[in-house]
Amino acid sequence: MSYHPLDPASAEEILDATSFVKEAYNGIELHFKGGGLEEPSKSTLVEYLDAEHNGDHLPSVSRCIYLNWYIKKTPRFFQAIVDITNRKLILHEELSRNYHGPADGVEMDEVSRAVLADSRVKKEIERLQINLETVVPDPWDFGVDGSDTQSRRSQVFMYTRNPKNNDPESNIYAFPLDFMVVVDLTTMKIAEIIHLPLGIDEKTSPHRTGTRTTPQNELEYDHRLQKETPRETLKPYQVIQPEGASFTVKGHLVEWDQWRFRVGFNWREGLTLHDVCFDGKSVFYRLSLSEIFIPYGDPRNPVSRKAAFDLGSVGAGVTANNLQLGCDCLGMIKYLDGHVVKSDGNPDPRPNAICIHEIDNGIQWKHTNFRTGNATVVRKRQLVLQTILTVANYEYIFMWYFDQTSEITFETRATGILSTQPVDSDPSVQVPWGTRVADGVLAAYHQHFFNLRIDPAIGNSKNSFSSTDSVPMPWDEVINPLGVGYVTQESILHCAGHVNDDVAQGRVLKVINENILNPVSHTPIGYKIVPHRSQMLLANPGSWHWKRSEYAEHPIWVTKYQDRQLFPAGDFTNLSVGGTGIKSWVDKKDTVRNEDIVIWHTFGLTHNPRVEDFPVMPVEIAQVHLKPFNYFSQNPSINAAPSSQALNASTPYRGPACCNDENSQDSP
Amino acid sequence: MSYHPLDPASAEEILDATSFVKEAYNGIELHFKGGGLEEPSKSTLVEYLDAEHNGDHLPSVSRCIYLNWYIKKTPRFFQAIVDITNRKLILHEELSRNYHGPADGVEMDEVSRAVLADSRVKKEIERLQINLETVVPDPWDFGVDGSDTQSRRSQVFMYTRNPKNNDPESNIYAFPLDFMVVVDLTTMKIAEIIHLPLGIDEKTSPHRTGTRTTPQNELEYDHRLQKETPRETLKPYQVIQPEGASFTVKGHLVEWDQWRFRVGFNWREGLTLHDVCFDGKSVFYRLSLSEIFIPYGDPRNPVSRKAAFDLGSVGAGVTANNLQLGCDCLGMIKYLDGHVVKSDGNPDPRPNAICIHEIDNGIQWKHTNFRTGNATVVRKRQLVLQTILTVANYEYIFMWYFDQTSEITFETRATGILSTQPVDSDPSVQVPWGTRVADGVLAAYHQHFFNLRIDPAIGNSKNSFSSTDSVPMPWDEVINPLGVGYVTQESILHCAGHVNDDVAQGRVLKVINENILNPVSHTPIGYKIVPHRSQMLLANPGSWHWKRSEYAEHPIWVTKYQDRQLFPAGDFTNLSVGGTGIKSWVDKKDTVRNEDIVIWHTFGLTHNPRVEDFPVMPVEIAQVHLKPFNYFSQNPSINAAPSSQALNASTPYRGPACCNDENSQDSP
Repeated sequence: MSYHPLDPASAEEILDATSFVKEAYNGIELHFKGGGLEEPSKSTLVEYLDAEHNGDHLPSVSRCIYLNWYIKKTPRFFQAIVDITNRKLILHEELSRNYHGPADGVEMDEVSRAVLADSRVKKEIERLQINLETVVPDPWDFGVDGSDTQSRRSQVFMYTRNPKNNDPESNIYAFPLDFMVVVDLTTMKIAEIIHLPLGIDEKTSPHRTGTRTTPQNELEYDHRLQKETPRETLKPYQVIQPEGASFTVKGHLVEWDQWRFRVGFNWREGLTLHDVCFDGKSVFYRLSLSEIFIPYGDPRNPVSRKAAFDLGSVGAGVTANNLQLGCDCLGMIKYLDGHVVKSDGNPDPRPNAICIHEIDNGIQWKHTNFRTGNATVVRKRQLVLQTILTVANYEYIFMWYFDQTSEITFETRATGILSTQPVDSDPSVQVPWGTRVADGVLAAYHQHFFNLRIDPAIGNSKNSFSSTDSVPMPWDEVINPLGVGYVTQESILHCAGHVNDDVAQGRVLKVINENILNPVSHTPIGYKIVPHRSQMLLANPGSWHWKRSEYAEHPIWVTKYQDRQLFPAGDFTNLSVGGTGIKSWVDKKDTVRNEDIVIWHTFGLTHNPRVEDFPVMPVEIAQVHLKPFNYFSQNPSINAAPSSQALNASTPYRGPACCNDENSQDSP
Repeated sequence: MSYHPLDPASAEEILDATSFVKEAYNGIELHFKGGGLEEPSKSTLVEYLDAEHNGDHLPSVSRCIYLNWYIKKTPRFFQAIVDITNRKLILHEELSRNYHGPADGVEMDEVSRAVLADSRVKKEIERLQINLETVVPDPWDFGVDGSDTQSRRSQVFMYTRNPKNNDPESNIYAFPLDFMVVVDLTTMKIAEIIHLPLGIDEKTSPHRTGTRTTPQNELEYDHRLQKETPRETLKPYQVIQPEGASFTVKGHLVEWDQWRFRVGFNWREGLTLHDVCFDGKSVFYRLSLSEIFIPYGDPRNPVSRKAAFDLGSVGAGVTANNLQLGCDCLGMIKYLDGHVVKSDGNPDPRPNAICIHEIDNGIQWKHTNFRTGNATVVRKRQLVLQTILTVANYEYIFMWYFDQTSEITFETRATGILSTQPVDSDPSVQVPWGTRVADGVLAAYHQHFFNLRIDPAIGNSKNSFSSTDSVPMPWDEVINPLGVGYVTQESILHCAGHVNDDVAQGRVLKVINENILNPVSHTPIGYKIVPHRSQMLLANPGSWHWKRSEYAEHPIWVTKYQDRQLFPAGDFTNLSVGGTGIKSWVDKKDTVRNEDIVIWHTFGLTHNPRVEDFPVMPVEIAQVHLKPFNYFSQNPSINAAPSSQALNASTPYRGPACCNDENSQDSP
């Protein structure tokens, strides 16, 4: 079987690589953590892609697999790159004890079993007078509190199923217990049991159990467990594509309208996009979500260390949902599978990890000639690539949209269940860093920080980053006599660093190619990055949340391209202490004007929960847009086919059965 | 026929009212401008709606029609409210000469004919060596430059059709002429001909005609006129609703899922929404787009006075498109017609001015139980009400979305054609307030300011406006030892005034009812207003753009409710000089805490055109969301029916015909 250099690691390749490593370890038991394609260096890949674009003879590029692992039941952590084409190790190193591998399902299961088997835990459960059979541990990565960053631990929040049904689908987050458990992951021993605060300060009282373990409102998200049958207010709504889909997918190459790109997949970033071209023109070399950081704002011990890196410490590929026909999208769907590595070194399939389909997003452009009454309409059809992550309680839906105007949109939908904790049932006990979402249930304030890594190829790889503000012209009797003039002021970034956004100045952020002028505007070709404008990190400078996240302080960072520089909070985020991410990269002050650059857009959701976010949260949507800005010589969708009833086959509404005359006025 | 008090004025009612006025004028010829339903006072309407909600006996409410008009060919301008139930004039007054009525189609046609018949205009056209038959005048409201605000004038920009085809659908905005014409609207005489600047300053040279009237790129938006046939990259995409639509429309009452509201329509605001309830609970009393202001940023005379009020000086109802089945939306569509007043007093129908349909907007919520592998998905079905305006060159698409979580979204899509002007063909001539979008064609920088009027009824009519920031807790060894805590700080507005947005503080803007606590959170019930965050007015304080717009300086204004206070730039915006809008209302410093209040959200688009915005602009989308915030006791969509393939009938993609194995890797 032959692979394109950007094809994700197949099951066979993963097995090939882990077998190669296992052989080298000669029977020593390994616990694999992360693994997948090690992408070729940019110089190698650009040479290949140039040949491919030009129809030239293709150079051969060897296939490499990245892996990391522990020697089982030890703190010894390794990483390697296995060249499986040439059967050799390109990199093989034991990592410092300050670096820790990501979580994995096998380990988390082991943690849960260890917790439930522990006699001290059993005593706590007895104290609460609940049945051990209903208790569900929820292991999290430990976070960092400065006490010890070398021993690998898990902090385990404790819940019960709804005591009334003890159903496996019960919403455990409606029943938080008042203690948590710390587990040492090397020894799988319980290190500590901590009672959680129920009031404004850290004081705890193990006898004040409140009503938090009694059934309340039965806040179930699973329809089968709800008291009433689902409401039947909506009638079926189906998308029909009588002539089939407009896209083609061959292997991992996707073509749709004037777009052509390749889809990647790996354990950490999940879905990635490569070699993105519109109408034969290079636009982006690589697009990826690079990290998600979720710091909590509850200052009380032990919740104060609660902060998760959902990509670096868990993995968007590892947690990718198996998407279901007709549930996760409508119309004609193509699914792509992925593979990650199991702890035993076997490939772990992620079936239907990515879905590809089309949507109709209303009108793309319209003009009605009022002089003749004639209208021209083009609809905004979009190609969508979707992937969904489940990280314990929480879900993220990520979507890449492409349209006929050469616009790309990256959309995040945050949903799933809030990570809850207990609070005193007395409503007079209020805390200013959380919301009561049910009796005795607190949802603490938290933030989500996403980072979108944008590796542009606007025209070619020599790009610059520009910020353009709209500013008033001063009053001037000659050149601005009415005081209404305004102009744009552009500033181009010279050195690697961060750029702040400024809504008040109407700041426009662009990647431009200063070497290529648009023939119509006579200005450099470019693409605009329309950011999701959001509050940045609230944790104080110097705090662990601040040190560890690095990228969450500014909305835009620009670096000079470096191979293997993909993760702005560092390569190893579990129990991380910072210092290996984007802040250290920009400290080098590389020149980034007219260079091969990378843009890192951080956007966030400050999520101070609403009651309406429980028991499951309606999607919170954030969009980032990439739009051509003087890149093309006119609207790229100008010759897109017009909208017509002949093709769209809509139907007129004829009124409810009760009404004879649909146009009748409503009688009072 | 019996009407609900909120039903828009019918054709019969408009005719009834204009006939009544005409009779009173005893044969004096009138030129009607605006007209439609005069809504009942709030006290009258609330009494009616309370009775309606409670199923009580309904009080009778008389039907009133608002009208304004000129005595034909004079500057004498009047307004009146005709009580057509009781056949009497409730208001009838001649207005000050400082107030001017809106534009209308009949008048604009007359202007165009007068321009083309004028000998001085003909001489200019001869100078340009173009055929008079191809010339198209484009009349605009005059704007204000301080010279004379009492005489009513139009400024007419001049274009030709594409000389190659001289087709009625030709994109005239690709061929701007180098002069404009001022017309006195009372006398219909040409007052002035002004040569337009082609360079950096106001200097003009009538002999420097450049290439702007020669065919260039043939930038046509009409597919029939394009050089090539439309691209055939997309296959049909149809929405099928086999059991019909999920909404019912009886007269102007719309019910869908748990929503119930009434649709209004008038010449000025177009689509309005009234008595908006979810699950039997009052949410909003009235929702409307109240104004659009479009100031241009070109400081050169005469363009410096270019600024349009598209609602007050033209009308969203007047310019409402006749929406077409299968072109403007997909699926099962209900259309509502509207009526405005013709200049002769007859009703002027606006067929299909509003469409009502459903869309599928991806996933509303999802949770996958990683312990069992089971997923629950509810889709984000939305009810959509859409209306589309054409104001000369430009289109606005406005959509109201409702969903099952009780969220409302107001969406603006700006499209249509840029209002262009000539520029020297020499590309070395660059101006800092515009973009060359074609050879010799300049699109000047401009802003669009929308104002959304939100008249809330959160629980009842006693509401308050709150701004809540998320702020870090200071480091503290006892209460914030890790420095990660953050809290919310709420401030409630006491006096009418403006509120600024602050992205950096994560500011959350809410309407709350301090008299009603949510039983779960024990905090006031509320609705969040998620603004469209944008740059405010760039024109200098004291300029005409600034004086006239009033509302464009701040994103949020809060006033105490007053009957007939609907338009934040004043009731009469044509040639307005300011002083009668929202700034004067808030100057009264009314108490707005725990009162009947109105929120006015201003959002804008700073539109510095891209080459890609020509010859027709891809939609620029702005969304404002209204979301419950501790209003309900849980996610209001929790019992919405789950998504299933049985209902959604999606189909798997089987790969392109060329590929036998859809899962094969792509061969290099």
